[in-house]
Amino acid sequence: MTNEFYHSDIISIKDLSRTHFDQIFAATDRIMELSPERRRNLCRGRVLGSLFYEPSTRTRLSFDAAIASMGGSSLGISDVSSSSIHKGESLADTVRMMSIYSDVLVLRHALDGSSRFASEVSSKSVINAGSGTEEHPTQAIQDLYTLRREKGRIDGLKIGIIGDLKYGRTVYSLLYGLGNYDVDVRLISPESLRIRSDSVYEIKKRLDFSESTDISEHIDELDVLYVTRIQKERFPDVEEYIKVKGSYVVGLDLLGQMKKDAIIMHPLPRVDEISSDVDDTPHARYFKQAEYGMYARAALLNLILNQDVRPG
Amino acid sequence: MTNEFYHSDIISIKDLSRTHFDQIFAATDRIMELSPERRRNLCRGRVLGSLFYEPSTRTRLSFDAAIASMGGSSLGISDVSSSSIHKGESLADTVRMMSIYSDVLVLRHALDGSSRFASEVSSKSVINAGSGTEEHPTQAIQDLYTLRREKGRIDGLKIGIIGDLKYGRTVYSLLYGLGNYDVDVRLISPESLRIRSDSVYEIKKRLDFSESTDISEHIDELDVLYVTRIQKERFPDVEEYIKVKGSYVVGLDLLGQMKKDAIIMHPLPRVDEISSDVDDTPHARYFKQAEYGMYARAALLNLILNQDVRPG
Amino acid sequence: MTNEFYHSDIISIKDLSRTHFDQIFAATDRIMELSPERRRNLCRGRVLGSLFYEPSTRTRLSFDAAIASMGGSSLGISDVSSSSIHKGESLADTVRMMSIYSDVLVLRHALDGSSRFASEVSSKSVINAGSGTEEHPTQAIQDLYTLRREKGRIDGLKIGIIGDLKYGRTVYSLLYGLGNYDVDVRLISPESLRIRSDSVYEIKKRLDFSESTDISEHIDELDVLYVTRIQKERFPDVEEYIKVKGSYVVGLDLLGQMKKDAIIMHPLPRVDEISSDVDDTPHARYFKQAEYGMYARAALLNLILNQDVRPG
Repeated sequence: MTNEFYHSDIISIKDLSRTHFDQIFAATDRIMELSPERRRNLCRGRVLGSLFYEPSTRTRLSFDAAIASMGGSSLGISDVSSSSIHKGESLADTVRMMSIYSDVLVLRHALDGSSRFASEVSSKSVINAGSGTEEHPTQAIQDLYTLRREKGRIDGLKIGIIGDLKYGRTVYSLLYGLGNYDVDVRLISPESLRIRSDSVYEIKKRLDFSESTDISEHIDELDVLYVTRIQKERFPDVEEYIKVKGSYVVGLDLLGQMKKDAIIMHPLPRVDEISSDVDDTPHARYFKQAEYGMYARAALLNLILNQDVRPG
Repeated sequence: MTNEFYHSDIISIKDLSRTHFDQIFAATDRIMELSPERRRNLCRGRVLGSLFYEPSTRTRLSFDAAIASMGGSSLGISDVSSSSIHKGESLADTVRMMSIYSDVLVLRHALDGSSRFASEVSSKSVINAGSGTEEHPTQAIQDLYTLRREKGRIDGLKIGIIGDLKYGRTVYSLLYGLGNYDVDVRLISPESLRIRSDSVYEIKKRLDFSESTDISEHIDELDVLYVTRIQKERFPDVEEYIKVKGSYVVGLDLLGQMKKDAIIMHPLPRVDEISSDVDDTPHARYFKQAEYGMYARAALLNLILNQDVRPG
Repeated sequence: MTNEFYHSDIISIKDLSRTHFDQIFAATDRIMELSPERRRNLCRGRVLGSLFYEPSTRTRLSFDAAIASMGGSSLGISDVSSSSIHKGESLADTVRMMSIYSDVLVLRHALDGSSRFASEVSSKSVINAGSGTEEHPTQAIQDLYTLRREKGRIDGLKIGIIGDLKYGRTVYSLLYGLGNYDVDVRLISPESLRIRSDSVYEIKKRLDFSESTDISEHIDELDVLYVTRIQKERFPDVEEYIKVKGSYVVGLDLLGQMKKDAIIMHPLPRVDEISSDVDDTPHARYFKQAEYGMYARAALLNLILNQDVRPG
């Protein structure tokens, strides 16, 4: 089987089909089955170059850990404020430079289209680690893999997504990804944090979903509850933050209304959206989800860097 | 001999017995005897995850160098201000995340008990790289190893500890560590920088020490003079800093009064406490001490990460 | 042939002779010819320690990428503001510490003579990554290698150097380096940004050059046009910056007047000095130059760290 990810870019979740996901899932399974000793030979001496124009501890560390577990190393700019970008260098030039210094590029940038643009000027593969308002493809891959692994399938699942659905690219990428499957999606949020109307049309083409403000209508039917953080910094008005904060907290009382085998997911970091006593219940999967994210990224890096992905 | 450090945590210097120290000293001796080629196979592909909630260049670099010398790598958060912690994530969640991304965790945190707490939520071993007011166990191990190596023994030594004994966890950890040995300790400091009264009782249970403000009473008897920095940032009042600053400077005149084979130690960084002309005398051991610190940390990491600590 | 760079320091471009350059060029050629698999064995387990007292994304990443491509790793302080240096530690002590933690040191510092001083207190080799007003030897090596590789020779070249010739150490190091060859150098800058008069005498001893403000006098004769950035932050007066900014922009119109095989170089980062449509012309060599820089640094590190520079 040829590896069609070899030397390719991962720019948008919309570029990936169900077949692509199957390939990445299988590669992730294989990576997790390897012993650490064998895993660390997969990308020996390979260099991951990261360019984070927006701060991101978690995604950056997940990539760093992924390449390190395969014997490679990482370098880059994790913080624009201490870099040459201050000197007025263009994104194109910075990307060109970084593609000299590394074997694969990981880019986070505030602008839509930044990763696509970077892939056009880079001599090495580019992975989008978050761009603009909608794209965070490796997060969506991590989420889909968690669904498949923890529920055995994606088709047929009833999935509630709750919290801030307006700001935060994670939800949009997840919805586009879920568009490849036959799922029943319920979006639950305060009115002011509903999914953006300009995205609804595009998502509706791929996926049916309902919208509501009240989780109690859905809670007993869900196979999966995907909780997102309500980020204070995204609100133009603090008053509004205070109003909605806490109205969507997942606690033991809510869990009591769920199916026995329903799972709780969260992209992390979590603040108060899930109370800590949920962590020890069998429903909690958010730390598993983070672990799968590291292995899914490792699988992706391996597919991109090596035509033959088996350890040497 | 079984390796009882395998998969264990290093939380408090008080948890370590004389037997533990002997094991770590022996492991440090062995690490230093290895050729670089053999040393770099000890932890190939292993990942050290560091979480520094307080800035620490030196301890962080010492750990980074230790794991790198054994073929491993490190990742983490060296500076809270550019991390997700800003987004309100709890210490527990950050530790859980980091324990996914790494094989062993190194934590520095302002709060007493933070490392103990971290070890309870972490799925990987935790090493305390400084917490609260008293605990810095790897610094104490480094200091004890330096004593044993440079003086041939710890029992029977006359040790003066001078400078700021109130602020700074290094002195407390050293005193608790010395409590396992038969030593004669003289604490020398300005009145306002005496060891904290609430710690005196606890330390007295393990160790006899005298307190004075005048080094001249002790200088000709000491085998070891351990000098500490007087940190401006620890003083609530600048006036008081100016008053004591410089009154405890170790120079050639003081060295002239010491035993021929007495040694000077310092945890570094040094500011003015030891004048630079001391560096070239045979008494100076503070850079040796830093070197031993790197090897002692390497030995500890090797003991924690590998049941069998010999190079593969 | 003995490797005279083994365990040596790279402090000043003035210390290097034509023979030295030939050795470094040959080593760079060899590094580039190696397969990645063989290259990554050259410095396995070696640690590069970097101390950047001035921010430098590009030079730091170039060194990090160089050592990573040879299987080594790097650690250090890329940003003084988050380091122990705040606590008042001297440069000598910081260098001594870093020479414990690493196999080779890379230092950038604002002061003339800082690298020379560092090499005197360091137990490991020191490479100057930029110091004071004139010294940036690895940049000059990168530039000379680019000339030799892209033009086949250095002797006999007509080289125009345009832009800010007063501030920025790159131009001075390049001129001292070119002093070893038989070249025809034309310096082109606004009056206020001419090369510093106190350096002219020293450079004139090694190299003949002309000075002018108008590129049109030279453009059709040049084999090489070396463009430098006009750095806003170097100007004491903003007015003066606005006056000269843009008056030395290299665009397609200027290229049309150049020799068919003339090349454009730039140390990067670029702001507006070269318009982006030049990038796709066969004249542009600035990204090649950055790539050569990484390999030249790798060659230098290999020469310094290994008596026998062939892969094991």
